[in-house]
Amino acid sequence: MKSKSQQNEWSSGVWAHLTTVRRQSPLVQCITNFVSMDLVANTLLSAGASPAMVYSVVEIPDFTPHIHALCVNVGTLTPDWLPSMKAAAEFASKLGKPWVLDPAAVSCSGFRLKACLELVELKPTVIKGNGSEIIALSSASRGHTKGADSSHESPDAIEAAKSLALSSGAVVAVSGAVDIVTDGKQVIGVHNGTKMMQKITATGCSLAGLVAAFLAIDSSRALEATVSAMSVFGIAGELGEAMANGPGSLRMHLIDSLYGLDETTVLKRVNITRLG
Amino acid sequence: MKSKSQQNEWSSGVWAHLTTVRRQSPLVQCITNFVSMDLVANTLLSAGASPAMVYSVVEIPDFTPHIHALCVNVGTLTPDWLPSMKAAAEFASKLGKPWVLDPAAVSCSGFRLKACLELVELKPTVIKGNGSEIIALSSASRGHTKGADSSHESPDAIEAAKSLALSSGAVVAVSGAVDIVTDGKQVIGVHNGTKMMQKITATGCSLAGLVAAFLAIDSSRALEATVSAMSVFGIAGELGEAMANGPGSLRMHLIDSLYGLDETTVLKRVNITRLG
Amino acid sequence: MKSKSQQNEWSSGVWAHLTTVRRQSPLVQCITNFVSMDLVANTLLSAGASPAMVYSVVEIPDFTPHIHALCVNVGTLTPDWLPSMKAAAEFASKLGKPWVLDPAAVSCSGFRLKACLELVELKPTVIKGNGSEIIALSSASRGHTKGADSSHESPDAIEAAKSLALSSGAVVAVSGAVDIVTDGKQVIGVHNGTKMMQKITATGCSLAGLVAAFLAIDSSRALEATVSAMSVFGIAGELGEAMANGPGSLRMHLIDSLYGLDETTVLKRVNITRLG
Repeated sequence: MKSKSQQNEWSSGVWAHLTTVRRQSPLVQCITNFVSMDLVANTLLSAGASPAMVYSVVEIPDFTPHIHALCVNVGTLTPDWLPSMKAAAEFASKLGKPWVLDPAAVSCSGFRLKACLELVELKPTVIKGNGSEIIALSSASRGHTKGADSSHESPDAIEAAKSLALSSGAVVAVSGAVDIVTDGKQVIGVHNGTKMMQKITATGCSLAGLVAAFLAIDSSRALEATVSAMSVFGIAGELGEAMANGPGSLRMHLIDSLYGLDETTVLKRVNITRLG
Repeated sequence: MKSKSQQNEWSSGVWAHLTTVRRQSPLVQCITNFVSMDLVANTLLSAGASPAMVYSVVEIPDFTPHIHALCVNVGTLTPDWLPSMKAAAEFASKLGKPWVLDPAAVSCSGFRLKACLELVELKPTVIKGNGSEIIALSSASRGHTKGADSSHESPDAIEAAKSLALSSGAVVAVSGAVDIVTDGKQVIGVHNGTKMMQKITATGCSLAGLVAAFLAIDSSRALEATVSAMSVFGIAGELGEAMANGPGSLRMHLIDSLYGLDETTVLKRVNITRLG
Repeated sequence: MKSKSQQNEWSSGVWAHLTTVRRQSPLVQCITNFVSMDLVANTLLSAGASPAMVYSVVEIPDFTPHIHALCVNVGTLTPDWLPSMKAAAEFASKLGKPWVLDPAAVSCSGFRLKACLELVELKPTVIKGNGSEIIALSSASRGHTKGADSSHESPDAIEAAKSLALSSGAVVAVSGAVDIVTDGKQVIGVHNGTKMMQKITATGCSLAGLVAAFLAIDSSRALEATVSAMSVFGIAGELGEAMANGPGSLRMHLIDSLYGLDETTVLKRVNITRLG
């Protein structure tokens, strides 16, 4: 049960974060998978941020010092890409810039799991995944190298997320019917969003990019910035679905809605609760 | 001329295939070109399947054993990608999983033609291309290495498709004004679809992915599963075009229509005939 | 101030160019960045051209001789891609085929700036960028290797564009609130387009592809063909924005509008002036 005053407290913070992103237009470097590049870039543009898909290892020393946040997504990982991801993550950590790790499909191979564990050691500000990804990564972080069952229930995900947050020092965000965000102590639930968003490829990757944009403008409060980004993306999805006839039109209306979000709508629709 | 009873026989099979894909949500690995990844993934999601764009050669031994079908498309082929395609195809063949080869733009270089011939030797379940691609590949399979004229007429494509089917052991599907599917003996014509679909990039690649999803749930009847996938995609295009103002909106309505296809519409619109 | 007769003169040329692209459907090879491949291909298809995203260095000797124009965009450049770009550009120059260089984000690294300078030496027919890209490239062409300020005003861009045009021999096109096209002597302003197009990723890359398609059908008049392509793309954006609720729907309506452009609309909306 949430009280009216608690709801309002989160709402104004979410709106403040969004307006700051729009005003500052942070430069967000996205080293993301091939499937998602288009939607990640359009999501960031619609939110008012400036995406840059620069990923070559030879460009990172020149480019990464100028960014405001980084997003690394391993969705189409190959051995060639890993050095870029690590170099950019190291620059970000060293220069105090926030960065997000999206361990997409972390369990699909031993190579990918090992790569994600190495990236976790480079101190991401936020780790964002779905339930099975977070459970697998959390388990592997504790030395359990067996693949995770992808049908784990939400309560398991909360414990896994808290454990991963404590061991890594990152805020951990778990997307699902209710999104969960935790720093290992606090657990926040974001109830915005719609199920049909999962029928559009790269919405998870786009959310990771959006989290990076929100971190860019409030990096000292990573938990709150992450919660705000997830709520904003979920609200855009809710508005989009009200106009959509299927995943094709939802993809379009989601972007339009994110672009057009106004204060009244945000204040009315934010649905965030404290879960623990 | 088709009889009413023949039409009905195909229709219920098409609908049964689609509902099974939706119920089982087969995992389809797509090693496809960069241009098409977004639309292929969204097509599979809208049809109820689970796409995975995993393509690194180091991940295939861990990942490919878990898939239900594979789609290989050479649209942006480089020498780096070929080992992954071959490794995944070999795993699929060895483990009895169906796989689709899309020899996109096979004639554009000697390198690509040779790569496609090598992939054909790894026993694809289905080879899907347009008329000139199938003619070129069929001709090259018989030792004719000269490039094919891209303006070949449909009757040539039927003979080329039958020849390629017999020599390769694959079902061969030729997209065109009338789609043709043959196992070398039977020749089936799929009359669904609209011309404007060719004005959207990656619709052919997406159809290849969809064929893989349908094979995943009925691999012992590759001819029928392929025919069903092509009819379903064509019907979605027809419904989409009725709402579209051009290729941009058709792309959106195609996905929405595929997602929302119901039994009445499928039974009414399936247009499949026996051509030989 | 433009006179009515001058306006009409440009208008009929723009329409003539578009109808010729539609009739001849030139084959345009695009070696472009990963973010843009989908939209570039769909833009070219909607305009009536035939895009081909063939980029492997091993395919260029077989393929590039058959194209009608080439577009090279360095948006996600890596050392691996540069040899392909150079090989294709060399073939194009040697065979007298027009080609466009889009120096996307040229200032983001020393590596990219050097690569662009090397590509400029391979004699692009047109160089198309935004103001800061053209200023940076023009400055570097004159031996100034310091990074450019990205907030340069339009008048600076005109001088930089003229200088780059004279030193490189290319027509230089600068996208902005008013697009500028110059061969170093004449300076033409294209006033079509809308600001919201900048909120869609890859619209700049798509415009570069469209310029290549227009060059393909009138390569001896590179200035006029470039002006026509920029005006057509801008008009499609204006029509699209009139129907759009945000960048998501603008992306769709832009493609539909480009596909459906008719003579009356083109003649009425072309807004081109001589600036110098």
